[in-house]
Amino acid sequence: MTETTGYSGGGFVHIKNPHLDSMEEDILYHLDLGTKTHNLPAMFGDIKFVCVGGSPNRMRAFAQFVQRELGLAGAGEELPDICAGSDRCAMYRAGPGSPSASHGMGIPSISIMLHELIKLLHHAKCRDVTIIRIGTSGGLGIEAGSVVITDTAVDSSFQPRFEQVVLGDVVLRSTELDKDLAEELLACSREIADFPTLIGHTMCTYDFYEGQGRLDSALCSFSSEKKLEYLRRAYDAGVRNIEMESTAFAALCGLCGLKAAVVCVALLDRLEGDQIRASHEVLWEYQQRPQRLIAAFIHQRWGWPKGPTH
Amino acid sequence: MTETTGYSGGGFVHIKNPHLDSMEEDILYHLDLGTKTHNLPAMFGDIKFVCVGGSPNRMRAFAQFVQRELGLAGAGEELPDICAGSDRCAMYRAGPGSPSASHGMGIPSISIMLHELIKLLHHAKCRDVTIIRIGTSGGLGIEAGSVVITDTAVDSSFQPRFEQVVLGDVVLRSTELDKDLAEELLACSREIADFPTLIGHTMCTYDFYEGQGRLDSALCSFSSEKKLEYLRRAYDAGVRNIEMESTAFAALCGLCGLKAAVVCVALLDRLEGDQIRASHEVLWEYQQRPQRLIAAFIHQRWGWPKGPTH
Repeated sequence: MTETTGYSGGGFVHIKNPHLDSMEEDILYHLDLGTKTHNLPAMFGDIKFVCVGGSPNRMRAFAQFVQRELGLAGAGEELPDICAGSDRCAMYRAGPGSPSASHGMGIPSISIMLHELIKLLHHAKCRDVTIIRIGTSGGLGIEAGSVVITDTAVDSSFQPRFEQVVLGDVVLRSTELDKDLAEELLACSREIADFPTLIGHTMCTYDFYEGQGRLDSALCSFSSEKKLEYLRRAYDAGVRNIEMESTAFAALCGLCGLKAAVVCVALLDRLEGDQIRASHEVLWEYQQRPQRLIAAFIHQRWGWPKGPTH
Repeated sequence: MTETTGYSGGGFVHIKNPHLDSMEEDILYHLDLGTKTHNLPAMFGDIKFVCVGGSPNRMRAFAQFVQRELGLAGAGEELPDICAGSDRCAMYRAGPGSPSASHGMGIPSISIMLHELIKLLHHAKCRDVTIIRIGTSGGLGIEAGSVVITDTAVDSSFQPRFEQVVLGDVVLRSTELDKDLAEELLACSREIADFPTLIGHTMCTYDFYEGQGRLDSALCSFSSEKKLEYLRRAYDAGVRNIEMESTAFAALCGLCGLKAAVVCVALLDRLEGDQIRASHEVLWEYQQRPQRLIAAFIHQRWGWPKGPTH
């Protein structure tokens, strides 16, 4: 059984669940928000853009960075966590109608957050929402610090598919991302000259150690030669970086009618090693690169703070 | 290919990775610890017991609870996060030689943390370590607030196995847990009369919504009848609760020679509904139940603070 991506009419989020409308209340448990306890249209109805990423600290830093870059009111002040009642997810307002939210590590964690975020956008009656995941990754044959914009997310067999288990059965989903959005982001990157940006396939795995062929795990049953053979096969299939969320993100956002992109910086080149050895300062600067690219994208797309939407 | 559980001699952690000893330095990236930057034997050599759980706030509360229950020095003071330089994992000292650490949501997240924790125990030369995951879960045919001690972790097909992808190939691993430890925990639970505790199978899924047959997801392709049929089949196979980490936890701990248990409270009965509707206060009290059981276990096993090990 294969499901394909379909964008909905009217620009609304595409909720494919007939049960949802008959529910009296919807508690978004991991966000600590709900339809009875919060006025979601008033709180979130203006959302046009959502930025998500694994680490709560990084997503707070991104919100602060955007506020500063765009000269928005409140820049420099401590930002409240909109999901403060839950420590499963953190959410900050990065600007008018543009929250940034953390999703933790791995497909199950981002899936939980995305189901609830997509329902939030639905309940808030948001339209024409763009969502971008920014993150860190291992590069493949690219310089550490390079930023990869994903054209296609692939699984550990280099296939563009996401296997979702539904009632014990596997359903295959497309992991297509928005090609125009990827090109728009690449064009934005040309304004930022001090780091390389490229478009490539992103491999998404269920495990950071054995699943990505690392030799420094607690268990390792393979040789350095077998590892490099696997990573070279990935490179030959077009993979330029490896992370742990992109297939599920692409599948779920695509099915729900969100224009989606994945932008990750490579913290190392996996053909050169496994351990992340750069200093905290260098890693921090690397992690700011996707943030700077997205800030340039926001500025170009919406012209904030003087743009037409606010 | 099937790998089986094997406990090592001498009580040391069983690292099955020939590459590790030839590494000059081991950076435990997600814990923000390393063999060159930290004296791991001095910091962690006394560890006999580790408690892990998804939520950082809950694991801090557990450490404070144990300190208070056992009348340990420092009880009531703010606890420093040993992994403060990383927001991927939080770790607190719950008592002498007994850290509590958070692992986030889902198999990929707990796998990252466990690989690094197991290497930490290895580098610190710890012996005879017991590890318990405490968590929250959805119950199956049991009262909300019941505590389930897992005898066997099963996958979404109710099979006692964990599929680990290694260089693109699937390796099957046993998800056996320590039977004596489960019985010892059940015996401890008899001292705490105010909530029901039972031993049963725990189903581990990759997804909270579609993967657990919820009707309140952003996408839902099945009927209420199909959902209940699936959950009843799980019940008939011996499943009493559902969570998202136990198979990977059981597999990895078993292979590395750690005595392991999983103790989760059920926040609801999934045969009755999908949404977690209880108040924050009730949920908080539920989440304390596994903590209270583990505190009783620590007291009985090691007799802290007057025990022989410290």
